[in-house]
Amino acid sequence: MLELRFNGPSGGNPFIDVQLTAVFAQENRQVPVFGFYDGEGIYRIRYMPDAPGRWTYVTASNAPELNGATGAFEVLPPTKGNHGPVQVANRFHFAHVDGTPYFPFGTTCYALGFIGEPFAQQTFDGLVSAQFNKVRLCLLPKPLGDLQPVAMPFERIPGAVIADPATLADGGMSTQKFDTTRFNPAYFRHFEKIVERLNVLGIQADVILFHPYDAWDFRNMPADRDDRYLRYAIARLSAYRNVWWSVANEYDFLTSKTLADWNRFFRIITECDPSSHLRSIHHSGEIYDNARPWVTHASLQRHDFERSSFYRESWGKPVIFDEVEYEGDFAKRWGNLSAEELVRRFWLAVVHGAYASHGETFITPPGQPVWSNAGKLRGSSGPRIRFLRELVERITKSGLNEFEGAYYPCAGKKGEVYLYYFDYHCPAEYDFPLPVGIRFRASLIAPYDMTIERMAGSFTGKDRGADSRQRDSAGLGEGICRIRLPGKPYMAVLFERE
Amino acid sequence: MLELRFNGPSGGNPFIDVQLTAVFAQENRQVPVFGFYDGEGIYRIRYMPDAPGRWTYVTASNAPELNGATGAFEVLPPTKGNHGPVQVANRFHFAHVDGTPYFPFGTTCYALGFIGEPFAQQTFDGLVSAQFNKVRLCLLPKPLGDLQPVAMPFERIPGAVIADPATLADGGMSTQKFDTTRFNPAYFRHFEKIVERLNVLGIQADVILFHPYDAWDFRNMPADRDDRYLRYAIARLSAYRNVWWSVANEYDFLTSKTLADWNRFFRIITECDPSSHLRSIHHSGEIYDNARPWVTHASLQRHDFERSSFYRESWGKPVIFDEVEYEGDFAKRWGNLSAEELVRRFWLAVVHGAYASHGETFITPPGQPVWSNAGKLRGSSGPRIRFLRELVERITKSGLNEFEGAYYPCAGKKGEVYLYYFDYHCPAEYDFPLPVGIRFRASLIAPYDMTIERMAGSFTGKDRGADSRQRDSAGLGEGICRIRLPGKPYMAVLFERE
Repeated sequence: MLELRFNGPSGGNPFIDVQLTAVFAQENRQVPVFGFYDGEGIYRIRYMPDAPGRWTYVTASNAPELNGATGAFEVLPPTKGNHGPVQVANRFHFAHVDGTPYFPFGTTCYALGFIGEPFAQQTFDGLVSAQFNKVRLCLLPKPLGDLQPVAMPFERIPGAVIADPATLADGGMSTQKFDTTRFNPAYFRHFEKIVERLNVLGIQADVILFHPYDAWDFRNMPADRDDRYLRYAIARLSAYRNVWWSVANEYDFLTSKTLADWNRFFRIITECDPSSHLRSIHHSGEIYDNARPWVTHASLQRHDFERSSFYRESWGKPVIFDEVEYEGDFAKRWGNLSAEELVRRFWLAVVHGAYASHGETFITPPGQPVWSNAGKLRGSSGPRIRFLRELVERITKSGLNEFEGAYYPCAGKKGEVYLYYFDYHCPAEYDFPLPVGIRFRASLIAPYDMTIERMAGSFTGKDRGADSRQRDSAGLGEGICRIRLPGKPYMAVLFERE
Repeated sequence: MLELRFNGPSGGNPFIDVQLTAVFAQENRQVPVFGFYDGEGIYRIRYMPDAPGRWTYVTASNAPELNGATGAFEVLPPTKGNHGPVQVANRFHFAHVDGTPYFPFGTTCYALGFIGEPFAQQTFDGLVSAQFNKVRLCLLPKPLGDLQPVAMPFERIPGAVIADPATLADGGMSTQKFDTTRFNPAYFRHFEKIVERLNVLGIQADVILFHPYDAWDFRNMPADRDDRYLRYAIARLSAYRNVWWSVANEYDFLTSKTLADWNRFFRIITECDPSSHLRSIHHSGEIYDNARPWVTHASLQRHDFERSSFYRESWGKPVIFDEVEYEGDFAKRWGNLSAEELVRRFWLAVVHGAYASHGETFITPPGQPVWSNAGKLRGSSGPRIRFLRELVERITKSGLNEFEGAYYPCAGKKGEVYLYYFDYHCPAEYDFPLPVGIRFRASLIAPYDMTIERMAGSFTGKDRGADSRQRDSAGLGEGICRIRLPGKPYMAVLFERE
């Protein structure tokens, strides 16, 4: 990230009054980038150059002291471990821009960006222990019960309240009223530090720009304030290489906004983000039309994994089941899966050629957040999800695609790798379709116990004539290989070419 | 059962040539009943009188020696333990005609009626051990691999074969060709003994009249032979009080028959069965229109229990999920559920106001049938299904109805009994909607461990004003009662009025 810093006007409302842009150039290529006011007369322009070599810039502003500044700099090759931002790769999957595979096995910590210590550190400890490589987190604060955000994103209007403090549990925080024409740069600086801490750990920050969980009426801002907030957020965050844009969480619960608003937000992001970070929008009920060109991947709140191929083909994009319900013991239906059930859902997503995200909602002691906001990771699914992630990373570089129509769900690559997951089915033997003349090693995997047991011998498809060829409508291979299995629930079987 | 026996003509083809009926009469009521030829010049007429007192009969036949026979008899009140046949009761449930509750917790042993010993006795041992109270069994034989039916329902055509014996595994049995205009009465007598053995145990015989699992081309008989077979079966079996008619298993796989055929079969059954036994038709994919007036209940091959209320209301009839896939370790998707999964499906059926049926398909040693045909019961779901049956029989006399729209599935009767099943949800506490001012005892049930743990104290709904009343859209009760739960999968909770 390159950051330019300038001193400029601090009178009036600089967030509205002052426009600042820069054009970054390399040879004939020109990249317009928006700057932002960071408070106390300081202006910044951030840019993530995407090519090594010499670059120049020139600024433009309606404030004379910010206008026409020029400079040049040399971009060096990426340092070791810097693979650049994540983009869509192989149509239904992801990779870093340098080609390093990236498969999302993420979680949800909505409040990580504004909850403060000790909870942020606890969250990072949990992220590291489970090796999650993506976090969904809200840029705007949400109420946290008896906890409070470290700061607020807008300037407070002293004395003004929007609700009777007696009706609220958070000590009056959610009664405060804010001037949504004036940002609080300290809030955003705090959020950025969290994004950078995630980046150091190789964790993608799936930044949720709008959400309905609001106590301060931020969800009902007029369109010009929404747009200004969006441009401000993009100017500040788009130079962080691990940022993804999630336009909203449960967008369809934000009833004050229309489809035209959501489309405009996507347009603003594509216009203002010079680095073209990934863009999605998360629903509750009604799914946004993910076929729209500005959507890079689907972020679903569903668990009908058997329809993954349908979704992938309909939209022509990767599918992440970003909310598949949470591990925990909440009273709500969406918040009390067993670890076994959540792990099962991850496996179903993977063998259907898609991805899933983790979340956790255990009832916590007073003063302690739940993981889906931030805090301690209490459940048991984390290590099992890590186990699956490591398995997937070992067996594919380009992502697993479902063999659509396979008798038991299977993903992989024909002739190379086949990963089966039997879910609640308990066969004691199965005629696996395999290609004739290619030899495979086979392993029996216990997803919850996290064991991989290599089966003795070498395996290939035996040609059984028209009958077996007819069975291979899924394209797995024209032969059949009978294998004895333990006849227990939740078995997985992996074939890898020898 | 009253059985009249007559000697009559044995020349020609008595199954076609001789018509024999009787009219049974009690005062002004007249009941026409069809007789049948039982071989060796013997004709029989069977009838199950449904009212005590004096009855008379008079026969009619185109054979002079069978025509105009008359008689009278006295019907005594039912003996102890004889509750009469099962009929639909309380719209969505069942009961014996004397009002004794009957809730189907059945299983599937297709070949029980023709498999012979020692397998029939093994089957009865299993039926008794799990206390199943209904069995689905085929009247026409199906191939049994290396086993053979005890007899065949039609006369063999000596020397004629319908297939190359070398292609078949059953020693040539399925190569034989039969004259489907001539029944083999010995076959039916054997089947009737099985039905009677079931009756002694209080087990309903859900007799499957047609099925697609055929090696002898019985499924492709012309319409006149189908109809004659049907009339013959009804004449022989309708006086057995435990008989139910299942017109077909997987009727939609019988592609040589049309919807008009199925409708005609139902019409023939309603015409010929003087005792109006229960009538259903079991599908594989396409569901027959169960709203037709001649269908008494739905016999489904599905496991979308959450749609039970929709099915019940659509057809106005009881719903039995007669095939919910089988416990076992077969390679086929439908034949390898764990016991846990099958027990789970029974509970889901019950809390959605419907019923389920058991089946089992473990891989067996050579020469041993699988339970879904007949033989040894090998699985672990049986005792758990019995546990559920005994629970249901204890808590309701009229059947459990779903509280449609309840947040977690619940069946029962408002103000009296509530049975919850939490499936894979693991809440550690839940605000149960309960009526205000009625006290309940509460029990925590572990469906697989078969424990019922009474919770200390007495429970009632606390009125929480408009908020709680608003939550009671399912009609469970306007108050709320918070209860701590173990936060484990597959919990059930029972409330019973004190």
